Amino acid sequence: MKCVIVDTLKSPYAKLKPVPVSSVKLTDKFWAPRLKMLREVTLPSQYEILEKTGRIENFRVAARKTGKISWRIADDSDVYKWLEAASLSLAYQHSDELAELVDSLVKDISLAQDENGYLFTYYSIKRKEERWTNLRDMHELYCAGHLFQAAVAHFRATGKRELLNTAIKLADHILNIFGPNKRLGVPGHPEIEMALVELYRTTGKVDYLKLAEFFIDQRGKGLVGGSIYLIDHKPFRELDEIVGHAVRSLYLNCGATDVYMETGDESILRVLKKLWDNMTKRKMYITGGVGSRYQGEAFGEDYELPNLRAYAETCAAIANVMWNWRMLLALGEAKFTDVMELAIYNGALSGISLDGKHYFYVNPLADRGKHRRQPWYSCACCPTNIVRLLASIPGYLYSTSDDGIWTHLYVASEAFIDLRGQKVKIVQHTNYPWSGDVETVVEPEKTCEFSLFLRIPGWSGDVEVRVNGKPINRRITPGTYLEIERTWRRGDRVEIDIPMPIKLIVSNPRVLCNACRVAIKRGPIVYCLEQVDNPECDVWDVVLIPEKRLIAKYKPDVLGGIVAIEGTAAVIDYNVWKDKLYLPLEEVSMKMREAKLTAIPYYAWANREPGPMITWIKSLLH
Amino acid sequence: MKCVIVDTLKSPYAKLKPVPVSSVKLTDKFWAPRLKMLREVTLPSQYEILEKTGRIENFRVAARKTGKISWRIADDSDVYKWLEAASLSLAYQHSDELAELVDSLVKDISLAQDENGYLFTYYSIKRKEERWTNLRDMHELYCAGHLFQAAVAHFRATGKRELLNTAIKLADHILNIFGPNKRLGVPGHPEIEMALVELYRTTGKVDYLKLAEFFIDQRGKGLVGGSIYLIDHKPFRELDEIVGHAVRSLYLNCGATDVYMETGDESILRVLKKLWDNMTKRKMYITGGVGSRYQGEAFGEDYELPNLRAYAETCAAIANVMWNWRMLLALGEAKFTDVMELAIYNGALSGISLDGKHYFYVNPLADRGKHRRQPWYSCACCPTNIVRLLASIPGYLYSTSDDGIWTHLYVASEAFIDLRGQKVKIVQHTNYPWSGDVETVVEPEKTCEFSLFLRIPGWSGDVEVRVNGKPINRRITPGTYLEIERTWRRGDRVEIDIPMPIKLIVSNPRVLCNACRVAIKRGPIVYCLEQVDNPECDVWDVVLIPEKRLIAKYKPDVLGGIVAIEGTAAVIDYNVWKDKLYLPLEEVSMKMREAKLTAIPYYAWANREPGPMITWIKSLLH
Repeated sequence: MKCVIVDTLKSPYAKLKPVPVSSVKLTDKFWAPRLKMLREVTLPSQYEILEKTGRIENFRVAARKTGKISWRIADDSDVYKWLEAASLSLAYQHSDELAELVDSLVKDISLAQDENGYLFTYYSIKRKEERWTNLRDMHELYCAGHLFQAAVAHFRATGKRELLNTAIKLADHILNIFGPNKRLGVPGHPEIEMALVELYRTTGKVDYLKLAEFFIDQRGKGLVGGSIYLIDHKPFRELDEIVGHAVRSLYLNCGATDVYMETGDESILRVLKKLWDNMTKRKMYITGGVGSRYQGEAFGEDYELPNLRAYAETCAAIANVMWNWRMLLALGEAKFTDVMELAIYNGALSGISLDGKHYFYVNPLADRGKHRRQPWYSCACCPTNIVRLLASIPGYLYSTSDDGIWTHLYVASEAFIDLRGQKVKIVQHTNYPWSGDVETVVEPEKTCEFSLFLRIPGWSGDVEVRVNGKPINRRITPGTYLEIERTWRRGDRVEIDIPMPIKLIVSNPRVLCNACRVAIKRGPIVYCLEQVDNPECDVWDVVLIPEKRLIAKYKPDVLGGIVAIEGTAAVIDYNVWKDKLYLPLEEVSMKMREAKLTAIPYYAWANREPGPMITWIKSLLH
Repeated sequence: MKCVIVDTLKSPYAKLKPVPVSSVKLTDKFWAPRLKMLREVTLPSQYEILEKTGRIENFRVAARKTGKISWRIADDSDVYKWLEAASLSLAYQHSDELAELVDSLVKDISLAQDENGYLFTYYSIKRKEERWTNLRDMHELYCAGHLFQAAVAHFRATGKRELLNTAIKLADHILNIFGPNKRLGVPGHPEIEMALVELYRTTGKVDYLKLAEFFIDQRGKGLVGGSIYLIDHKPFRELDEIVGHAVRSLYLNCGATDVYMETGDESILRVLKKLWDNMTKRKMYITGGVGSRYQGEAFGEDYELPNLRAYAETCAAIANVMWNWRMLLALGEAKFTDVMELAIYNGALSGISLDGKHYFYVNPLADRGKHRRQPWYSCACCPTNIVRLLASIPGYLYSTSDDGIWTHLYVASEAFIDLRGQKVKIVQHTNYPWSGDVETVVEPEKTCEFSLFLRIPGWSGDVEVRVNGKPINRRITPGTYLEIERTWRRGDRVEIDIPMPIKLIVSNPRVLCNACRVAIKRGPIVYCLEQVDNPECDVWDVVLIPEKRLIAKYKPDVLGGIVAIEGTAAVIDYNVWKDKLYLPLEEVSMKMREAKLTAIPYYAWANREPGPMITWIKSLLH
């Protein structure tokens, strides 16, 4: 029987609809412990820091209408991002402690709002006349956007309207000021665009959607100076290269994708596809990290992907996940899932320590041991972004379409998915990301005909799929969704075997820094060599010999449980080089010795004693 | 006969004494035309720009004590640097046009000085109370230093005292303010240190020397914030790694070396040697360029030498020349001459176009065709520095010591050198840097016993030296000075044959970006591949095969006359890569084809149509 689809989130031009975090319970050893740590360690400790640094107090001062507001760039947004993460975490699993913090914070925020709806603590008491006068630098609209996202997440998690009302009041205030025939303006840091669309989806008020579109189309007219950094050098619809501040650029793309999902505007989609191609084919690290350039925290030129001086801000990798998630929802293509997965497991996850209390802002792909995660940053965007990402993970596993249920990330879990008015329980058994064998049990309330769309990762090879033990005889293509259309009965079992051989990856030769270098990858995980595991040599001196066999070994007690890669490699005799920088070729002996080698997942580096690390390893190849 | 040494510049702890530019006439095809262009094109055109941009007018406004001073960072210094270069140029060869501009400028500057000696146009009329209050950012002491250097050069070139008097008046004003038991202070941008020593050498006033020492030793106490960028993180005498803003760092070292030459202070020399080792063995491009990092225009970490994103400011390469020149004077060791020569012919010379009117600020070692020399920069330090360097070249050929005459750079020329009260004429016949065959004719006024110290370049191999046709039978060691002690008679001929084979240079493997890459070098010249000479392929796709013979060919009509390097190489088939960024090794075919290859001197790139350029070329080696 075909049944009517219930749209909780109405996005007429989106191919897929999300399944909320509240519908999914993780049972695995990779993500479930991380979500527990998020709930019990990271979020409470961040709240403490937000309190200690005055970020929360700012709202109380604003409410009292007397006192001194402390100022750090975009500090209100840190509070909102924490609140969004905490709300998602509550939606996933309740915690009294967290709920209490959330309730108190929602009250603090709501009380800080002006009568007229304005809410931005820095201008709450003094300098009121400067409100909305410096959109480029002051991040008012950016903070508003984060409030909207927090409010929607809070409403969905708790059903409580208090914060949503605050958000609506601020959004309406902004609507009164900005728009066609009102004030023109460009948010210096995009964010409000996607937030307005989300607020539109939640409230049905179409003005929010229109304002999002308006903000996108005001760019490129020089309203904030015309810089590439701010992606103000060209109108959005004329962009053909991904440039500028990486997080700004990707947040803008998120907003534009959200607008597309509501409006079906092809001229937006065309641009998004072009930017995506440019980014993924020329400007993305193997980790899914982006924004290679320190200067301006920006996308560099094509193939400008330095390793030692990679910037690759944690926020940019997270934004990469956010954008690809939206592109996936819009178009239902597996290439977006591939990038999303890549960035989640590597370039974004490296942003937080295994103890849940230290963060990377910058994520180099090579280091000599000086780069360490910090407990906090004065610009705290990354710590409060990684908690949003972690809290969102359960919501990235599945989505639904008119035709059925889509599986994106493989994680041992139980999900209760609304499909055409009935609940379908999906249980996954897997040791992903360490193994590609996934058993999925489908349990519809009632027998029901629909398609199960299984993601076949782009990095995979010969994948085997069996339904109730019977192999599927169709061609299974990596980088697509395999549609299994059938009448599903309780207990139907789908097995997917995705082999995870160790792969040596090489770069496009125009990535000058990676010449004669390989990266080790297994499944979605990118590996690196860290000094602490390799006492026999300096890891920068390792030369991988492709012919030598590498072995994957599960080590439950190392770095929270990882698959390590072991083998032997050649090692340069560094002594001849010690005091030389350049030598004529004929004077160099390329003498090498052999040494044991152990590689660990890139995301887990810098959690033990400091030392050299390298991701792109020299190799005997051309 | 041994004769008394006449010290024009008294530096008791310097091993060598400079021979002024006025004593040398170049007759070669490399530098003589460049000095002509400097005199006839570059200096006049720069004067025009200095006038047009208001930099010179600022002095006139200051003199009138009414009107508006325009402000650009350190704009007074640009005028002083031009004046120093023009004075050196006049000392080398007179030009009526230039002399007129110099005279008028000297008047403008002198009239702008306050009664009390103060001279800095920005604070000349308004904001007088802010004088000397922000040493970190305002470059008052920096500009003063450049005035002192210009004044000394002007005095030496013309014998006129007007500008020297202005400089002395300002120096005495600064002496009144700063010093032990007076105001403490650290110049945000070092420069005045070396200038004060030069003023001391010219006037004999020891207070200037002491103030230079004072300024050096005030660093590291946090007076300007304690940043590494400003080399204020540690006392100078405790530095053990070259860090911070490259030009600041090297100018500081220049000043410290100058102080050492006057005081013999070993604790300074020890630091200088450490910094020199760190720079040349870990932080210097093959071009002699330094300061690899965009962020802070700074020295990076050890081995942090990116090619595409090399910063390698022209000023930093020039400062590298300046420092090594001073180290050479201080210690008489050929390793300093090697670095000086390297930076002159490569990393510094690339800073100016062949037409003498366009400049690089940043000197990448690889490019896709976007990086072009500009007619000027709003921060104009590099254009006005390269003219100082060019004008100084004749003065870098020789120096003298107690024992005799030292030859440093080989350039066809005639020099009249004061040695122990008599003139020794030295004539060089050579086609250096394109050939290493140098014939030197020694013509003392009277037969005289002294040593001729011949520089044997560190990059050379089997050098042959003949005196009056008779080979010298001693071991000749590259990277040293060969002392030829004899009684010299008019017409004595010394021939040096320095072979210049084409060398492929490889990097220390810790320079991650240069793995499996070679640079082409011949004599002191570093080569690059530029697209315009290589129509058969994209130069980034070239793979050099060390076994294939490369040929050096003199091309008088190309790029002002160069030796080009020609041969064949392999070329990557880029088509397989076009839309791929990363591929598993097993999917990559390393198919290559053959193509002709032409390399040109690095300094000459970007003088024709834009296109890709590469210095470190991929190669089949390990």
